[in-house]
Amino acid sequence: MQFSKEHDAFRAMLREFVAHEINPHVDKWEADGDIPLHELFKKLGDLGVLGVEFDPAYGGQGADHLYMMIAAEELGRCASGGVSMAIGVQMMMATPSLQKYGTHELKKKYLEPALRGDVVTSIAVTEPGAGSDVASLKTKAVKDGDDWVINGSKIFITNGTQADWMCLLARTSDEGGYRGMSQIVIDTKAEGFSVARKLDKLGMRSSDTAELRFDDMRVPISNTIGEEGRGFQQQMGQFIVERMFACYGKVGSMQDALDRTRDYLRIRVVNGKPLIANQYIAFKLTELSAQVDMLRVYNLKMAEDYMAGKDTTRQATIGKLQVGRLSREVADLCLQYHGGMGYMEENWTSRFFRDGRLTSIGGGADEVMLQVLSKLDGFTP
Amino acid sequence: MQFSKEHDAFRAMLREFVAHEINPHVDKWEADGDIPLHELFKKLGDLGVLGVEFDPAYGGQGADHLYMMIAAEELGRCASGGVSMAIGVQMMMATPSLQKYGTHELKKKYLEPALRGDVVTSIAVTEPGAGSDVASLKTKAVKDGDDWVINGSKIFITNGTQADWMCLLARTSDEGGYRGMSQIVIDTKAEGFSVARKLDKLGMRSSDTAELRFDDMRVPISNTIGEEGRGFQQQMGQFIVERMFACYGKVGSMQDALDRTRDYLRIRVVNGKPLIANQYIAFKLTELSAQVDMLRVYNLKMAEDYMAGKDTTRQATIGKLQVGRLSREVADLCLQYHGGMGYMEENWTSRFFRDGRLTSIGGGADEVMLQVLSKLDGFTP
Amino acid sequence: MQFSKEHDAFRAMLREFVAHEINPHVDKWEADGDIPLHELFKKLGDLGVLGVEFDPAYGGQGADHLYMMIAAEELGRCASGGVSMAIGVQMMMATPSLQKYGTHELKKKYLEPALRGDVVTSIAVTEPGAGSDVASLKTKAVKDGDDWVINGSKIFITNGTQADWMCLLARTSDEGGYRGMSQIVIDTKAEGFSVARKLDKLGMRSSDTAELRFDDMRVPISNTIGEEGRGFQQQMGQFIVERMFACYGKVGSMQDALDRTRDYLRIRVVNGKPLIANQYIAFKLTELSAQVDMLRVYNLKMAEDYMAGKDTTRQATIGKLQVGRLSREVADLCLQYHGGMGYMEENWTSRFFRDGRLTSIGGGADEVMLQVLSKLDGFTP
Amino acid sequence: MQFSKEHDAFRAMLREFVAHEINPHVDKWEADGDIPLHELFKKLGDLGVLGVEFDPAYGGQGADHLYMMIAAEELGRCASGGVSMAIGVQMMMATPSLQKYGTHELKKKYLEPALRGDVVTSIAVTEPGAGSDVASLKTKAVKDGDDWVINGSKIFITNGTQADWMCLLARTSDEGGYRGMSQIVIDTKAEGFSVARKLDKLGMRSSDTAELRFDDMRVPISNTIGEEGRGFQQQMGQFIVERMFACYGKVGSMQDALDRTRDYLRIRVVNGKPLIANQYIAFKLTELSAQVDMLRVYNLKMAEDYMAGKDTTRQATIGKLQVGRLSREVADLCLQYHGGMGYMEENWTSRFFRDGRLTSIGGGADEVMLQVLSKLDGFTP
Repeated sequence: MQFSKEHDAFRAMLREFVAHEINPHVDKWEADGDIPLHELFKKLGDLGVLGVEFDPAYGGQGADHLYMMIAAEELGRCASGGVSMAIGVQMMMATPSLQKYGTHELKKKYLEPALRGDVVTSIAVTEPGAGSDVASLKTKAVKDGDDWVINGSKIFITNGTQADWMCLLARTSDEGGYRGMSQIVIDTKAEGFSVARKLDKLGMRSSDTAELRFDDMRVPISNTIGEEGRGFQQQMGQFIVERMFACYGKVGSMQDALDRTRDYLRIRVVNGKPLIANQYIAFKLTELSAQVDMLRVYNLKMAEDYMAGKDTTRQATIGKLQVGRLSREVADLCLQYHGGMGYMEENWTSRFFRDGRLTSIGGGADEVMLQVLSKLDGFTP
Repeated sequence: MQFSKEHDAFRAMLREFVAHEINPHVDKWEADGDIPLHELFKKLGDLGVLGVEFDPAYGGQGADHLYMMIAAEELGRCASGGVSMAIGVQMMMATPSLQKYGTHELKKKYLEPALRGDVVTSIAVTEPGAGSDVASLKTKAVKDGDDWVINGSKIFITNGTQADWMCLLARTSDEGGYRGMSQIVIDTKAEGFSVARKLDKLGMRSSDTAELRFDDMRVPISNTIGEEGRGFQQQMGQFIVERMFACYGKVGSMQDALDRTRDYLRIRVVNGKPLIANQYIAFKLTELSAQVDMLRVYNLKMAEDYMAGKDTTRQATIGKLQVGRLSREVADLCLQYHGGMGYMEENWTSRFFRDGRLTSIGGGADEVMLQVLSKLDGFTP
Repeated sequence: MQFSKEHDAFRAMLREFVAHEINPHVDKWEADGDIPLHELFKKLGDLGVLGVEFDPAYGGQGADHLYMMIAAEELGRCASGGVSMAIGVQMMMATPSLQKYGTHELKKKYLEPALRGDVVTSIAVTEPGAGSDVASLKTKAVKDGDDWVINGSKIFITNGTQADWMCLLARTSDEGGYRGMSQIVIDTKAEGFSVARKLDKLGMRSSDTAELRFDDMRVPISNTIGEEGRGFQQQMGQFIVERMFACYGKVGSMQDALDRTRDYLRIRVVNGKPLIANQYIAFKLTELSAQVDMLRVYNLKMAEDYMAGKDTTRQATIGKLQVGRLSREVADLCLQYHGGMGYMEENWTSRFFRDGRLTSIGGGADEVMLQVLSKLDGFTP
Repeated sequence: MQFSKEHDAFRAMLREFVAHEINPHVDKWEADGDIPLHELFKKLGDLGVLGVEFDPAYGGQGADHLYMMIAAEELGRCASGGVSMAIGVQMMMATPSLQKYGTHELKKKYLEPALRGDVVTSIAVTEPGAGSDVASLKTKAVKDGDDWVINGSKIFITNGTQADWMCLLARTSDEGGYRGMSQIVIDTKAEGFSVARKLDKLGMRSSDTAELRFDDMRVPISNTIGEEGRGFQQQMGQFIVERMFACYGKVGSMQDALDRTRDYLRIRVVNGKPLIANQYIAFKLTELSAQVDMLRVYNLKMAEDYMAGKDTTRQATIGKLQVGRLSREVADLCLQYHGGMGYMEENWTSRFFRDGRLTSIGGGADEVMLQVLSKLDGFTP
């Protein structure tokens, strides 16, 4: 598996975009607690980033999955994790099921504008009180004529205050447990939808996060993605892609952080020598650098297998777990070795520390990964 | 060594005070980035907390050192680490040298109002570019008549925008290195003193942190604490007390955090059982609980030795290192096990996580502790 | 709590004894897989070590518990962990219940010769298939006239091939679970007792470890220690003392290992400088040295509380857990920093590594400590 | 990169061979401290294992490097690490330089019988007092007519008492440092060669390890491998291959150990449930399983790059470091979760623990890997 010149050019283009079109605005977006997503996504859509590996029939570029990996890595270099997360939701969390299972009409209406950057999208799965426990979802969609009538609430919804449509997971039968759920595209302009509140987070502050309410919200049954009752299974597949995005993106952001920290320690003089001359510090960072390389290679193989149509559940789970562990340690030590300045908000390390802390929680907590993996590997019956 | 009923009563009084006089205001103070220190310190002074182990001749209570340990532990339960840090500066960082080495006149003028809570104090040692490297301080005090004329700057100064006086460490000769420094009480109303800027931090946000400038600031030579030229050595002793305060305080805050997390996990139900029923989580927290107990006992012995007049440098250094390690892990796991809610600013875990991150940096970074200790124990020549 | 001159003299005497009467023979004992325990214990009995804190009415010295702590620490300096374990069984595992609950006659007959070093003793609790799960013990004692008739088997019995008597835990009723067990002194010369086999271990090779069989072994009912049916509870108390012995002993052995490693690294030159000049190595060992000091202080407080008659279950459990964690790391790094020579059997590090690995398993595995502690601290219902 | 049916067949063949031709004899070899290498290597040579990726012109099979990786992984399943190490020396440590740089005559005379399994070979680099510090080698070869006259000593030489020839690294000029060394094939039957002593090790006990002496040993100058004076550089390349072998082999052995432990924990019942039902244990092993998978994938990519002729120094160094860290943890926990039986020599866990401890030392200690890598990645000037 090799990167072609086209891959390299795509990477260079995105690195430029992040450096010039995103990072100069990030401080403001962080302060605002909001990114102008419609504006930003339009630019990304025009560049062919949002649908880079999606079907050209619906506005995608039809490129291979490595482009998606490259995109995630380069977006990981955003000076705010909230920005790359917001984009990631559009690219790899809200749209994959629609692309894979949606009808032609549904894709024309919802997928195409999303890939073109004309709309902002989101994924609405997590509920208050349920957390990672998807089986206990309570939000319910009941048929009434040609419509679903939806009641319930969702929480921790990224892009939730700005999204034009969302990929909702709701109960559509009374079977309980993992059965009887469906994925439904919901238009946020429809009556009965409301943003209950916007949440204030430790990090990822530029990204808006919402708690949502559905009060007799009506959505056409034809908005159902794929098979009715198979929503849980379809969403599980979408989660795998989400984990892969987290793995890819973190390699970019961690490598960037280690590079910046190394460069700083080379010029920061304490006791008459640069801090990097402290073997203890140098070796600690070296060990992290080694781990990042292992993850980078693991991602490559995962991408390769994904392109070959193989099931990447185990790899995505292992990668996500490792990303959770490693990104906490990288952020912690990058801050530590910047000393007092590292603790200041004016220094990139403090935001990186706050943002990175979400990795072990969002998209399935580390403990959920361990649970999933312990079953796959036979350590849990 | 036993706690008497009087010790217990003092603890109960402070726990009440924290719960009723501090914690209800903490959200506002965090948002303001400021605590009304004069008001707060007056209350603490009236209760005899600020000078609990200091000389009654200067407004202290003359109680034993265990009271100081109790005070630090209970202040560790403040809902913002910034509040306990601000108080700690007055109790164990800005005043010990003055109490130990100051003249009667100096103590009457500066120590007594500090212990009574009539003024706010601070400690001005760290300089931009020097960090933990005290030997490279550049701020200079030159004699001119009966005055020191002071030029230079200081950074990361807690209480720095509100302090009435500060315990300054400055070069008073050209010897260089660890020699030729002196401790001087400076009145912040004097001309030539200015707050260059207020710093914005990852955590401890209620506490104001300043960068200071001294431009031909004039201070009477009689404000010198102890022996001229012995400032570094005196300050090292003051640092030991600061480390002890950090050790004591963190036992209180970590125990509180573990208790709260345990209580939450008992009632938070996921997949049909309380989260605490997950053995992995229970054992992880149990191990932290064990470590906190070891630190608590270590503190007790350190306090006992301190009371017996022994040198506690090694103990304070070991304790500070362990506190740095442990408090990061406690804060990290308390947040983790609260899941998505743990990452929200509305939940105590996120502030605790931000605040606690300073422990491994402030008062000497972990790596400085390792350096000091490796010499004491013969691992560094 | 202070060490008196008498304590110091006792420590010096034992350090001499270990250096001159034990260590010169250790290589042979390790090769033999056997220590001449009767000979060794006689010497220790004559010196008043075996019963140092026991009742003088039965051959003890009636000294305070600090002497026991000192003894354990100094025995921890034996060049084979097997030797200190063998002695520890006699001092703190086989005899405490007898001292506390035994009748005058039983103590005269069994305790007194044990404390004088005239006999070798052992503790027979663990059974094949039961491990740390004491509640599932199957060895049974049934009354027949004035005798218990005992059937069953025990495993991992230290001193098991040489012991003259053992403190047996057996079921004496059909209640099941933790009820209906009794502690019984069994004379190994009685018919029906046999050593099924001697076990070959990774470490502690000088110490003999046996699997035992009881085939209609007859023991007088008057050999029962304390209350019939209360054996489990009495044994739990004896386990606490065993854990305390492990905590004390390991402080001695780990400190010794760190000191020896530091001394070696000072003279071992690689790439033109002593290995200790590698900051990474120096800081790693410094951190371990800090942890050993924390354990040493924790032990002191535990000993103090034990002397004051307090329940030390929690402390002994925390200490044992920490000892298990820490001794693995100390042994691992001491070996590592000796490089290739560290892996050779001729070097002390390899035996120390093998011996020390038992700490996390024997006397209750780390996971058992976590289980016990998680209940005590409320993390497990 | 895919495994073909031929790869799979090769793997199956070797797995059979290990199970039937090696493992049944391992207990005896461990007790003897010797493997009948000439007999064993002949069998492996006949199967085409020893020279699987070497030039068919000299008895090799000319297969691709994946076969070598497969061979290492399967040999990692030997019930004694000493056996796989002994074979590894022949396959990837003593012969690569000869294959790459040797003259036709030298390869005919020495390489061909080694690949066919007619002789036993070894690599003689490490010296007493030098350890990983190859630049300080002292063994000297001086020209005298057509011969080198060799004086000096070597230590920790695997296969050292049985080898027919060795790949020696010696100083052949007075330049000092990394210059002026050469690789020379030495015939151990030549006069002046002697085995000073056989070393007794913590683990790898089946494999013989020797200290060697050279007293005016004469070897033809034509036995020099490659360019005179380039020995250090050639040996560095050979070390890279050695590290790759360690990475490959450990994946096999660790996976095997985790599988066996999982199977044991499923049937071992404590407190009425199988040990694997303890979530804490299951998750700990799951995490290790994840790490092994990451290493496996990392190896694949390294093998692929090696086959493409790329420099794998960084990858081999990262892999070796990770293998050192991980194999200690795997061995430690596999033993731990077997409880008391895990500590018995009759159980595989104790040998695995002893054997595996060498990984972080042999072939360059972890700290050497950190040093090399910190330079490659710019953390050390």
